[in-house]
Amino acid sequence: MIQVAVLGYGVVGSGVVEVIESNKAAVNQKAGNELNVKYILDLRDFPGDPHEAKVVHDMNVILDDPEVQIVCETMGGVKPAYEYSKKALEKGKSVCTSNKELVAKHGPELLQIAKANNCNYRFEASVGGGIPIIRPLNDCLTAEKIENITGILNGTTNYILTKMERAGADFETVLKEAQELGYAERNPEADVEGYDARRKIAILASLMMGKNVDSEKVFTEGITRITADDFVYAKAAGMTIKLLASAKPVSEDEVLAMVTPCMVSKENPLAMVNDVFNGILVTGNMLGDAMFYGKGAGKLATASAVVADVIDCARNMGRTLPCYWEDVDAKFASVDEVERSFFLRVEKSAADAVLTAFPGAKEVVVADRADAAYITAPVSEKACAEKCVALGNALLSKIRLA
Amino acid sequence: MIQVAVLGYGVVGSGVVEVIESNKAAVNQKAGNELNVKYILDLRDFPGDPHEAKVVHDMNVILDDPEVQIVCETMGGVKPAYEYSKKALEKGKSVCTSNKELVAKHGPELLQIAKANNCNYRFEASVGGGIPIIRPLNDCLTAEKIENITGILNGTTNYILTKMERAGADFETVLKEAQELGYAERNPEADVEGYDARRKIAILASLMMGKNVDSEKVFTEGITRITADDFVYAKAAGMTIKLLASAKPVSEDEVLAMVTPCMVSKENPLAMVNDVFNGILVTGNMLGDAMFYGKGAGKLATASAVVADVIDCARNMGRTLPCYWEDVDAKFASVDEVERSFFLRVEKSAADAVLTAFPGAKEVVVADRADAAYITAPVSEKACAEKCVALGNALLSKIRLA
Repeated sequence: MIQVAVLGYGVVGSGVVEVIESNKAAVNQKAGNELNVKYILDLRDFPGDPHEAKVVHDMNVILDDPEVQIVCETMGGVKPAYEYSKKALEKGKSVCTSNKELVAKHGPELLQIAKANNCNYRFEASVGGGIPIIRPLNDCLTAEKIENITGILNGTTNYILTKMERAGADFETVLKEAQELGYAERNPEADVEGYDARRKIAILASLMMGKNVDSEKVFTEGITRITADDFVYAKAAGMTIKLLASAKPVSEDEVLAMVTPCMVSKENPLAMVNDVFNGILVTGNMLGDAMFYGKGAGKLATASAVVADVIDCARNMGRTLPCYWEDVDAKFASVDEVERSFFLRVEKSAADAVLTAFPGAKEVVVADRADAAYITAPVSEKACAEKCVALGNALLSKIRLA
Repeated sequence: MIQVAVLGYGVVGSGVVEVIESNKAAVNQKAGNELNVKYILDLRDFPGDPHEAKVVHDMNVILDDPEVQIVCETMGGVKPAYEYSKKALEKGKSVCTSNKELVAKHGPELLQIAKANNCNYRFEASVGGGIPIIRPLNDCLTAEKIENITGILNGTTNYILTKMERAGADFETVLKEAQELGYAERNPEADVEGYDARRKIAILASLMMGKNVDSEKVFTEGITRITADDFVYAKAAGMTIKLLASAKPVSEDEVLAMVTPCMVSKENPLAMVNDVFNGILVTGNMLGDAMFYGKGAGKLATASAVVADVIDCARNMGRTLPCYWEDVDAKFASVDEVERSFFLRVEKSAADAVLTAFPGAKEVVVADRADAAYITAPVSEKACAEKCVALGNALLSKIRLA
């Protein structure tokens, strides 16, 4: 029997206990051993909960119990999750986590500590919820040079953009509705400003580069300025608008990483990733495009990914599984020179100014509008920004094309 | 250094050599060792080929060389691939294959021989080409009870159906064009009759059940009777037509498996899998739906999956990786009682007969047509078949709804 401790009895933590129980036979078969949740660490008590007796308030109880071999860290946040994870690994206990913030910040250090102690630090659940994406990068696409990763990595913003598209509604209206339904937080900043997505793309980019990609250095723009008007033109152009997180190696140790709303052609497989779903498109030099799609969040989907990691740890006791993520910082390529087309929506009065500033721009024609919209020929980020300054207040929207 | 032998220097085999060479640094890093192709087994000689000197014509050269630790079986067919694979495994050499026919027929036996000899039999490339799907089932979704697998597993038929939809063309016309482009074989039977797809779903179903699912017992219907007229109505109903291969456990040891063309709602993620792409939708009891999408065939994509297996073998020398596929036959549930809606296209004269035989059937209205089409209320396979007999020659098409 393998004893497991769960840190944090919140949404994901209670899901982990539920998955281990509900799928007991399948889980134990795959683990090659019986898994048992011995402790649940939480500040709270849970009177009446069937696992009430397992709840402890002191991390040392878990650290000092040599029977505990695997720890599920489902607390979130850096403090005290970082310290707890580190101490557990130092004692040779494997740690499986859904904590993207901690992985993005201290992943390589914790991986090294795991290696030094012949155990594992696993984080499949930190990106894409229940969608397998960490293992595919680490263990499946091993014969590939990864040329690009582009994903819809945040369910909340994807839900909002999907609703805006379908209902023709504005951002604020849909955000409010999403908050009422519990799909968006009361303080939605981390989602709508793209901070959640940039942590996740930083983790994927780190695995792609084999080096540390600092999430805070990722060029990031949220979705708060996307309007119902933008969707009217997107539709007319055979496109939709998605918050895309992308990373691309430009050399051995230099990465180009961005999180921005993008106009996406309906031909792009990411265009059909709707509602709270996530999709991650990985381009390999041999494989071409592969996409991984599914529920990017949710109690049981995320917990299922944590338990799959627990099973991996159980299968590999005393053995550290390979994970290529050195504690060396990747350099960031400047986005300034990246060339692409832009969608520009302007006051009708500025139409000539757009066509002069952006030779070859094509109008997106929609009848009976007081504004006008264009898709530019490929132009660098920097040049586009400079030209847009000249448009002044007549510029209503600027959205990158994927 | 780990010595590798490649059996069969055809499309996939030469791709394997190319991937190992082109991505040398990445492949060796992931393998944790240098991989070297020592032999290429083929009946032919390849004068002028850079690997000419590695070509051998006698399998015993490979079997008798203790340096060879990993064999890539990219010959296809059962004979002599079965014998060669068996002998290699008996000598403790791991075998990585793209051969779906052999895996579907002798998978569990070869897995057992591998286990007995502390080596591995790996077959990621046998389903979905370069798309990771075997490992996700074996190693990622381990905390799930899989409730359903439904996939577009054959690129040729998907290319044909996509072209029929877009061009409004008939099956024969598009098939001929696909043959000219090399997307379909001169003898297209294995693809268009669904035999290729049923081998692949049998492999996935076997992993899902942990038991042997005999591909020849899978209820199979090809796409040869799908017409341009069917696509006209599919479009009007907000659907498309795809060749779906599906498997669903109905009990511990009983599986329901089918390969048939299906009307698929545009809301279904499989509806957007177009051209030669494959997509596999896996439903888990905790995760819900996850989809794996990419190129289901092609030299380098398939070879990349073979090489990823080689890397796994290299990482796990002397250790057999878990694979749950017992050499016990799964039972097949009868399709007779499966209830679903059907699309029925009939002569206009039979409209009343349809509405009488299928209460609640809804007409799909398209102007200026000499035929008429209906979507029935859910009805069992058997009852539908019986009622359709009564429609006689007035029945023009019958297509299941996904």
